[in-house]
Amino acid sequence: MKEKVAIIGVGHTEFGELWDRSWVDLVEEAGLKALEDANIKKNDINKFFLGNMSLGMFGGQEHTASKVFSEIFNSSPGNQVLGRRIEGACSSGGLALEASFNDVLAGAHQGEDRVIMAGGFEKMTDKPTDEATKILSAASDMGKELGFTFPALYGMLKDRYLEETDAEEEDFDYIAVKSHKNASLNKRAQYSFEVSHDKVKKSFKVANPTKLLNSSGIADGAAALIMTTERKAKKLDADYILLEDVRGVNDSIALFERDDILTLVSTKKAAELVYESTGFGPGDIDIAELHDCFSIAEALALEDLGFYPKREAWRWIRKSLSDCEDKQAPVPYKLPNGDELFVNTSGGLKAKGHPVGATGIAQAVEVTEQLRGNAGDRQVEGARIGITHNVGGSGGTAVVSLLRKP
Amino acid sequence: MKEKVAIIGVGHTEFGELWDRSWVDLVEEAGLKALEDANIKKNDINKFFLGNMSLGMFGGQEHTASKVFSEIFNSSPGNQVLGRRIEGACSSGGLALEASFNDVLAGAHQGEDRVIMAGGFEKMTDKPTDEATKILSAASDMGKELGFTFPALYGMLKDRYLEETDAEEEDFDYIAVKSHKNASLNKRAQYSFEVSHDKVKKSFKVANPTKLLNSSGIADGAAALIMTTERKAKKLDADYILLEDVRGVNDSIALFERDDILTLVSTKKAAELVYESTGFGPGDIDIAELHDCFSIAEALALEDLGFYPKREAWRWIRKSLSDCEDKQAPVPYKLPNGDELFVNTSGGLKAKGHPVGATGIAQAVEVTEQLRGNAGDRQVEGARIGITHNVGGSGGTAVVSLLRKP
Repeated sequence: MKEKVAIIGVGHTEFGELWDRSWVDLVEEAGLKALEDANIKKNDINKFFLGNMSLGMFGGQEHTASKVFSEIFNSSPGNQVLGRRIEGACSSGGLALEASFNDVLAGAHQGEDRVIMAGGFEKMTDKPTDEATKILSAASDMGKELGFTFPALYGMLKDRYLEETDAEEEDFDYIAVKSHKNASLNKRAQYSFEVSHDKVKKSFKVANPTKLLNSSGIADGAAALIMTTERKAKKLDADYILLEDVRGVNDSIALFERDDILTLVSTKKAAELVYESTGFGPGDIDIAELHDCFSIAEALALEDLGFYPKREAWRWIRKSLSDCEDKQAPVPYKLPNGDELFVNTSGGLKAKGHPVGATGIAQAVEVTEQLRGNAGDRQVEGARIGITHNVGGSGGTAVVSLLRKP
Repeated sequence: MKEKVAIIGVGHTEFGELWDRSWVDLVEEAGLKALEDANIKKNDINKFFLGNMSLGMFGGQEHTASKVFSEIFNSSPGNQVLGRRIEGACSSGGLALEASFNDVLAGAHQGEDRVIMAGGFEKMTDKPTDEATKILSAASDMGKELGFTFPALYGMLKDRYLEETDAEEEDFDYIAVKSHKNASLNKRAQYSFEVSHDKVKKSFKVANPTKLLNSSGIADGAAALIMTTERKAKKLDADYILLEDVRGVNDSIALFERDDILTLVSTKKAAELVYESTGFGPGDIDIAELHDCFSIAEALALEDLGFYPKREAWRWIRKSLSDCEDKQAPVPYKLPNGDELFVNTSGGLKAKGHPVGATGIAQAVEVTEQLRGNAGDRQVEGARIGITHNVGGSGGTAVVSLLRKP
């Protein structure tokens, strides 16, 4: 019989400039919180997968899993665990989620109820911002050599979008207003304050037309979750959420290799795979944590995930969010069929923060909390189905997952 | 029904100082060779896992999988594949093998016959040797800060072994003589020449008592293999080898945290898990590719994997190899029960070379070729069962796999 995968616990550090804490401190905090939330012990964990883009370049350490073993698991005698780091740039967390999901299923095939910790982290602020930006550019095609940065790459996408549609630059600025508004209800958020549309509009150009307040920042943080078979979750009497499927797809690393740079084929295909395997579609989804590293990225994701027709998201952004300054958070998008969709209730990468390797896991933490009904002030009432969408580079990798309240 | 995992194709580049080739060239060569060997197309691959320790620090590139997609898979329209990099220091390749194995089983659980490429690579010689040694020390606990290098860490293990037993330093030198002898029959080896015991003994001390000819070198190289379900392998009419199980276990990253530094608990536990799940034990094994980054490491592995009692390997090394200069390669070890065990027929890390992220996969390539009977001049007649043993750091991670001729 086909076993399902259940998320039974989540943990999440504050995101921000955490200069007084090491990367191990952050992983430990997120991991122990997840264990406590799941009400299990260190020795119950069989494996852990850590999404992380570049501890090598940010912190000069490799062999991450063994270090984590020393600091977290080794205190518990008799421990027998296998960890590893998973790298796929900013989608490292999503790939760790995908790997953990598959490992639970592999165990089920062998008659084992494995308990897996899926984590993600990045410690970026120990480097000056210009150096951190250069390290991040290692996720692009020869970014360091050619001098491309991600604000510039996503600026090119925005430029093209403005060229091909009737969208105005300020349409995208509403996205940032909405995200900051949501983040104001999230204590873990890096930027938990509201911003006005005027402020976003007048913020300085980082890489024209990408403005500062269209961009996620440089951050430190970690997130973790515990998953196992549904069978085991029931045995543990856990308040679990089903991870119905996780799929990822690659695309070319460079934009110039793509037929249409306004379509992230990786996102589109990954979503199609998830919709096909789960039987759910965009119309069934209540909440979504999307990869909004820049405002244009959220617009493109809304299209590529099937919520809006291609090159039409800007109309719905305008329709949904142009008066959001005066609304109560979390602020939803209006869908063509009249339904509402809550996107990035956490504040998203923009305002909750984007410690890159942590993001894919942090997204799943937010969706899990929303579906369990313990998202506090930003709770979406009656949310039953949610997705996460995590992108590496400018779409060279995308991972989509679908979670459901059982 | 429990599905088994089959290896249906292998690919392996030359190992060495390959200054005229990029890391992508190497991955491409190994990957295409594996596809050709398996007689399948790029579009047949569902996922790929790339073991690599530190392309970030060695080559300034992250998001490895997307770059590989661009260079290898993208030329094939309709391609839909998901790749990622797996990091666990020098056990990155073994962890990629483990991840691939589990992914095939996860697919089997969902009714999919996934075809997975497990690869590994490292491009180390673009950095000067002292810098490469520093990058490698990032796999230890604060190695860069404290000035520890791996020749020094393994030197401490050798020192302790010499202190606790009646072994002589030159006993370990026979291991290098044997490995070079085996490598002389391997065209892909970095050091495919024989060395005399006298030469090893007189080679200069890198970090006393670790001598140059006790040590693996700095190398470039890549290896890849294709695996799928046994059901699919039969459908493809492939000349396949069964990957019976792959297990890994972590230990502390630092030696001072261990009860007995002469026991690699990670190796011991991983082997026990594999022996238990497969029903095979040390007495059933014909060939083994062991992690001999330094000569002492091979001695300890022979004990921890259960071939010799603890602190007794040196006697059997002396008994088996002291006259190996005059013997025909491959030269076997004598086991206490009178059987023979062929270890590192490829030349091992010492003489075949150790591009760190490639090693775990390269070991499985050698065992697969031996079990298929196409290992050429170094073929072990009648080999039916083999293991691989891949270590990260000084034992912070160990991965053991068992392969069997069906």
